[in-house]
Amino acid sequence: MDILKTMETALSELHEAGNYRVFAELERHCNDFPKATFYDDAGETRDVTVWCSNDYLGMGQNPVVTGRMTEIIQKCGAGAGGTRNISGTNHYHVMLERELADLHDKEAALIFTSGYVSNWAALGTLLSKIPGIIVYSDALNHASMIEGIRHSRCTKRLFRHNDPEHLAELMAADDPNAPKLVAFESVYSMDGDIAPIEAICDVADRFGAITYLDEVHAVGMYGPRGGGVAEREGLMDRLTVIEGTLGKAFGVMGGYITGPEVLVDFVRSFASGFIFTTALPPALAAGATASIRYLKESSAERDAHKANVAKVRAALNARGIPHMENPSHIVPVMVGNASKCKWISDVLMTDFGIYVQPINYPTVPVGTERLRITPTPLHTEADIRHLSGALCSLWSQCALARAVA
Amino acid sequence: MDILKTMETALSELHEAGNYRVFAELERHCNDFPKATFYDDAGETRDVTVWCSNDYLGMGQNPVVTGRMTEIIQKCGAGAGGTRNISGTNHYHVMLERELADLHDKEAALIFTSGYVSNWAALGTLLSKIPGIIVYSDALNHASMIEGIRHSRCTKRLFRHNDPEHLAELMAADDPNAPKLVAFESVYSMDGDIAPIEAICDVADRFGAITYLDEVHAVGMYGPRGGGVAEREGLMDRLTVIEGTLGKAFGVMGGYITGPEVLVDFVRSFASGFIFTTALPPALAAGATASIRYLKESSAERDAHKANVAKVRAALNARGIPHMENPSHIVPVMVGNASKCKWISDVLMTDFGIYVQPINYPTVPVGTERLRITPTPLHTEADIRHLSGALCSLWSQCALARAVA
Repeated sequence: MDILKTMETALSELHEAGNYRVFAELERHCNDFPKATFYDDAGETRDVTVWCSNDYLGMGQNPVVTGRMTEIIQKCGAGAGGTRNISGTNHYHVMLERELADLHDKEAALIFTSGYVSNWAALGTLLSKIPGIIVYSDALNHASMIEGIRHSRCTKRLFRHNDPEHLAELMAADDPNAPKLVAFESVYSMDGDIAPIEAICDVADRFGAITYLDEVHAVGMYGPRGGGVAEREGLMDRLTVIEGTLGKAFGVMGGYITGPEVLVDFVRSFASGFIFTTALPPALAAGATASIRYLKESSAERDAHKANVAKVRAALNARGIPHMENPSHIVPVMVGNASKCKWISDVLMTDFGIYVQPINYPTVPVGTERLRITPTPLHTEADIRHLSGALCSLWSQCALARAVA
Repeated sequence: MDILKTMETALSELHEAGNYRVFAELERHCNDFPKATFYDDAGETRDVTVWCSNDYLGMGQNPVVTGRMTEIIQKCGAGAGGTRNISGTNHYHVMLERELADLHDKEAALIFTSGYVSNWAALGTLLSKIPGIIVYSDALNHASMIEGIRHSRCTKRLFRHNDPEHLAELMAADDPNAPKLVAFESVYSMDGDIAPIEAICDVADRFGAITYLDEVHAVGMYGPRGGGVAEREGLMDRLTVIEGTLGKAFGVMGGYITGPEVLVDFVRSFASGFIFTTALPPALAAGATASIRYLKESSAERDAHKANVAKVRAALNARGIPHMENPSHIVPVMVGNASKCKWISDVLMTDFGIYVQPINYPTVPVGTERLRITPTPLHTEADIRHLSGALCSLWSQCALARAVA
């Protein structure tokens, strides 16, 4: 079949460029995070330490979360049984939405099956249904925001990454009466840099734009109650919409938006990707609610996390392993070559029992391939020593450039 | 803010047309399906019988499923902790994909966070990345397929619903050398009619097209192993791709495609909505696997379901309640007016403890508003008598036309 031939060719090209993705088959250990069992191609298993999870705080194994999920499965069953409109709205969805509105100090919240869908559906709906709206999108926004914007087919301006002045320039050149929306992220996932939220909001205010902030890599982790970077900086009221995920620091699955009642109701009423899909299982909603409540009260995980991130950076510095400086919890160790990046990752797994997935194109630009290391509060001093030692030995074998202290 | 005003106006229009959606807040009872607790606006609760769930067979409360989910939460924790590529592939995802490939007798399978995302991402990717491809889409395809097709921006032809001759006409008019894909469903959700799968595949073969069949309302329920209508009719090998859901008859959450290895690998490698999203929780994957395995072996649920559907139809006929005849398990009771449909649904809930969501525009065309009744094997004879009696009394109060026997 010609169509399948076309696909085969495209896959061959991925292989040749070193960008073909091989998923590591893991079995996470609930009471021993971040350890996992790795299944290799032959079905052989071995224990590894995961160094690239987005379960940043280990909440996925917190008994507050797993216990609540188990309880609600026994009480309400497995799935929701329908879309939100047709029998699928469970009491625990409603409770979760209240909890999220409170977390970000907004009037209302709406949950989606994933953070990807929340960005795609919310931006896609807002931007396609407000006549004449112009979106100003940070050049490094996540694929889900890009797809939502693309879906809407509205007028789009890309502003240079984290550059409020460029944003102001673009806005000044547009019709002052056109409705405007600024879409950006707080913590950018791959470089770990953080947006100048206040400066961007100042520009948005000046031009009468509403603002949409993706905090998926920040919720649970920044701010006194885990409300994200905007909470930490006292800026939550400057954002019209704060979007987040239940699948990273909160340890479960799902996405959400929070914002003004009318806006949330609008997305609820018109977003195809919200309306025509089965709701999250009640147990996931209840587990996420427990996780959010817990992290509103407890800062111990955030503190230990910060301390471990600093320890990992120091250990890498001591060994001359080059990593990108940034003000967040993400530690990108730069390799700059797709095949080498994959080779290092493979050897870490097989020879050292360390799992860090190579990050290649299209997730990052060609030439900036990296190992994206995400320390958690549950990595031990020994884990950190073992990681930096392993990288040091591979850097020598691979003749990769060292960082200059 | 002007933008919020625009939204307010749009919502007012929904209210005026009687199309504003109010979600019923429920708490499902795990060991007493299809009973649930209903929370009204005042927070008061009452017990109701759910007559509109897509948990068609009650598998959401089957101990085989809930027990397995509980076990894997205790073993692997709450969430997956990452995208499939970055630490999120769990052993239970891999097992589920094997189980699904076997269910549909295909080389490979790929799971997504929902059926919506599986259609959107798979069709969006296939149709945007095969140069010159033309899609032939059934006029009543689900929103998720429409969005996937729209996303791809490929050349699109709509064929009249379930009309292979119209499909053939359209195909004959196009370039014989253009790659072609036919996208359709087996059971259509709102009318409950079933596609002439064989005739459509014959046309597709004649013009060298690949075929994509959405079986979300059929998997688990038709065919000796629950493989869907295509399995029942011995046609699975005629379909290039069979798409399904884990969130309806299987009782959990998530969606999937099955098909040739190279096609599945292609979607896995290029679909944004698959790549850039957190994987399903391992416990959901394990619960869904248990559900599929159970329904491969047991036909008791399917048989009891069929019997109950027939009983409901007979009870409605006896009372003169008009419902759409169709060869599936979906019983659409036609009302034909948005406000009356909502009124009946409200009274059923408050006066009779019966929950059937009104189905209004845009889910169905204006003028075809309905109550979409979905009997399950777990509704009792008394439940059925109570439902038909309640509808009978409301039909009189509302002066709605009776069906002529």
